[in-house]
Amino acid sequence: MNRMHFLFNPKTVAVIGASRHPRKVGHVIFRNFLEGSFRGEVFPVNPDTKTLLGKKCYSTVLAIKKRIDLAVIAVPAAIVPGVMKECGKKGIPAAIIVTGGFREIGNTELERKVEKTIKKYKIKTIGVNCLGIFDPYSGVDTLFLPSYKLERPGKGSIAFITQSGAIGSVILDWMAMKGYNISKFISYGNATGIDEAELIDFLSKDKKTKVICVYLEGVKHGRRFYEAAKKCSKRKPIIILKGGLTKEGNKAVSSHTGSLAGTKEIYEAVFRQTGSIMARDIEQVFDFARILSTQPLPKGNRVQIITDGGGFGILTVDNIIRNGLELAEMNKDSQNFLKNHVPKYVVVKNPIDLTGDATTERYKMALDTALRDKNVDMVAVIILFQVPTLTPDIVEVINEANSKKRKPIVVIAAGGRYTETLKKSLEGYGIPCFSYPERAAESLNALYQYSRRKTG
Amino acid sequence: MNRMHFLFNPKTVAVIGASRHPRKVGHVIFRNFLEGSFRGEVFPVNPDTKTLLGKKCYSTVLAIKKRIDLAVIAVPAAIVPGVMKECGKKGIPAAIIVTGGFREIGNTELERKVEKTIKKYKIKTIGVNCLGIFDPYSGVDTLFLPSYKLERPGKGSIAFITQSGAIGSVILDWMAMKGYNISKFISYGNATGIDEAELIDFLSKDKKTKVICVYLEGVKHGRRFYEAAKKCSKRKPIIILKGGLTKEGNKAVSSHTGSLAGTKEIYEAVFRQTGSIMARDIEQVFDFARILSTQPLPKGNRVQIITDGGGFGILTVDNIIRNGLELAEMNKDSQNFLKNHVPKYVVVKNPIDLTGDATTERYKMALDTALRDKNVDMVAVIILFQVPTLTPDIVEVINEANSKKRKPIVVIAAGGRYTETLKKSLEGYGIPCFSYPERAAESLNALYQYSRRKTG
Repeated sequence: MNRMHFLFNPKTVAVIGASRHPRKVGHVIFRNFLEGSFRGEVFPVNPDTKTLLGKKCYSTVLAIKKRIDLAVIAVPAAIVPGVMKECGKKGIPAAIIVTGGFREIGNTELERKVEKTIKKYKIKTIGVNCLGIFDPYSGVDTLFLPSYKLERPGKGSIAFITQSGAIGSVILDWMAMKGYNISKFISYGNATGIDEAELIDFLSKDKKTKVICVYLEGVKHGRRFYEAAKKCSKRKPIIILKGGLTKEGNKAVSSHTGSLAGTKEIYEAVFRQTGSIMARDIEQVFDFARILSTQPLPKGNRVQIITDGGGFGILTVDNIIRNGLELAEMNKDSQNFLKNHVPKYVVVKNPIDLTGDATTERYKMALDTALRDKNVDMVAVIILFQVPTLTPDIVEVINEANSKKRKPIVVIAAGGRYTETLKKSLEGYGIPCFSYPERAAESLNALYQYSRRKTG
Repeated sequence: MNRMHFLFNPKTVAVIGASRHPRKVGHVIFRNFLEGSFRGEVFPVNPDTKTLLGKKCYSTVLAIKKRIDLAVIAVPAAIVPGVMKECGKKGIPAAIIVTGGFREIGNTELERKVEKTIKKYKIKTIGVNCLGIFDPYSGVDTLFLPSYKLERPGKGSIAFITQSGAIGSVILDWMAMKGYNISKFISYGNATGIDEAELIDFLSKDKKTKVICVYLEGVKHGRRFYEAAKKCSKRKPIIILKGGLTKEGNKAVSSHTGSLAGTKEIYEAVFRQTGSIMARDIEQVFDFARILSTQPLPKGNRVQIITDGGGFGILTVDNIIRNGLELAEMNKDSQNFLKNHVPKYVVVKNPIDLTGDATTERYKMALDTALRDKNVDMVAVIILFQVPTLTPDIVEVINEANSKKRKPIVVIAAGGRYTETLKKSLEGYGIPCFSYPERAAESLNALYQYSRRKTG
């Protein structure tokens, strides 16, 4: 078995540096394991205390009798090498070192010591200088931010790996609010042990993960990254956001992580050649991830729009065309069928405008017709939930159509709390929702481009 | 006095077509006036009922003894001309006709009748086929959507006029959720009476309005629109989103409103020549509106970034540069001053990286220094509210700096409910907040471009 599995599915965890002080990192992490959804056993290690939250505390990891699958390290930087040596002697296969204060502030020598030790003992290590791992399936959670400030997303199929802990944590929080779910979150910091290439390789084989999202500032081993990304993207999509693509941003990268940043042109060429999908901004990473992880690949680029608001239909047409997609033309049979089943004033073209007195029934009719029609490859459903005649069971109608996975469906819906609540239900059913047409059209295009690459 | 004022500040309102049935438009509108924040007197008109919600009901508007400032019409299309004639005889100066079923479905002749009547009696009329007006200051609210489905924004300085009622209502709802406030909302539908040019003209002189946002599908009178927009944009910014800019979108426009749509090139030329600001999408309309209505104009394009997360700093640099802005270089004095007042590991460059243990105090120091420095024209403050050391009074620090209105400030902050709550407070103080760097940089650029046009 790949030792990396112990990072995500340990039966026994030692938290080294578990502290009595509630605001300390080691305390928060220990408490997460103890009180969260983790179902294995957790051991606090701290020479200065006898018990912690009712658990016996060990002076060193070597004093624990049971086999330990995963060590989480939250001790001062200076003693990390020694602690890792003990982990090695204990035969621990995997570790997460959240401690910072190494290469990123000039302590290269100290980091090299850590590197040597983990190599010697073959400990699969995430870190140093990171937030570590959040796995909603196993309950592994080394994020040391309180959950009232930072919510955690539910179980899904999007993996997210990030060099920057700050970006990672903020995005997790935002995803939780939006109802976007994940398979694994990994903030890997300085990549002293495991780097982005090894993570991509591992996640490409992970059955819970359908799409891999990456926030990168620099790459540790260019060649390895190239090979891993290329191999992976044949199997599942990788979406990359690269920080520091401008000359000035690049300069900021070097003072942030000290990574060799490389030029925009090189990165773009590498991403293109490996079949990776580049995102323009953070929201787009997860726009693309949601559509790619939930929707079937389309056979072509023809989009049918269904709407209950004319203006939104028009803006969606504009954005479909701007993104190089085409408007579908349903065949005569579909058009006639639909015309016979909706009021006369409903415009059966593209967009199909169900108008401001649209009902759930009318949406069902239009959606089913579009999904059946051979001239339609994808469907964009605009729902202004606010109209008086529309009832919340529209969510079930969309879910039913979507669950057949015949053609990609996206929903466009903007509004306040009422709308956001219904959108969250749709997201929960695996239907990507967008507030405004632009991002929906860009995402449909990303899905189409990926389908062409995969089949072409 | 301009009769248009009666649309927004009537002392007496007649709701013609006020219905007993709670789901009917005429009922919802009457109830809005009766139970909302409107402080004038409201009269229901309906020949089929004696009283409505405890108020005496009139068979015709002519039966009301008092002078009526505003008539709101929600009767079937066929009887609208007759009702308007009565309004004319009664000497009512202003009307909102929400009723649809005219030109937009081919009933051109009926709409012409209405047009003749309102011209004859000089009734300043919004509609037909519209949602009408929402004015948070006076409480005029003819939106016939229940407030649990459609929230209303608070009092602010952004006016929003829209041809499409659906787009307008959805955006109002979304603005309310976000905490964005408005001065006036006008859905003008078929523009049978007042058109977009007259509205722009009126709002350009409205003291409560600092910025005018427009959603357009077509323009009724090209020349008048041109003159109004040109005159207005010298006084205050107009931001325009035009639906149907692609050829295909244009086709959809003609089947939606029947407007003569004109080409993309013509519209873009008109918007440029009149000094209007074009938005790419709906969110951008309000990104631009918020920064233009709250922030002072910058003297130049040099942006100082302050952050507590390195990765976000880098992405912001990338976006500042991509939008043609420059990174500010604070002078040596500022840099030295700041270095003396923050821990050694804080990076005093651009971005200033206050790091993950940033405090409110440290933000204050950095922000004040940047605002004082002559080499800085604008400040982008990235706040990851999630970091453990940061307390919610950071909101007050930003507000204090912003309230001096020396230089434009924007905040970039992403996250879940905790973050959204704090952002809503900042928005309430008139500080534009963005989730991700891209939109912040685009908005700073819009502000800079407007300042150049104004001064150049």
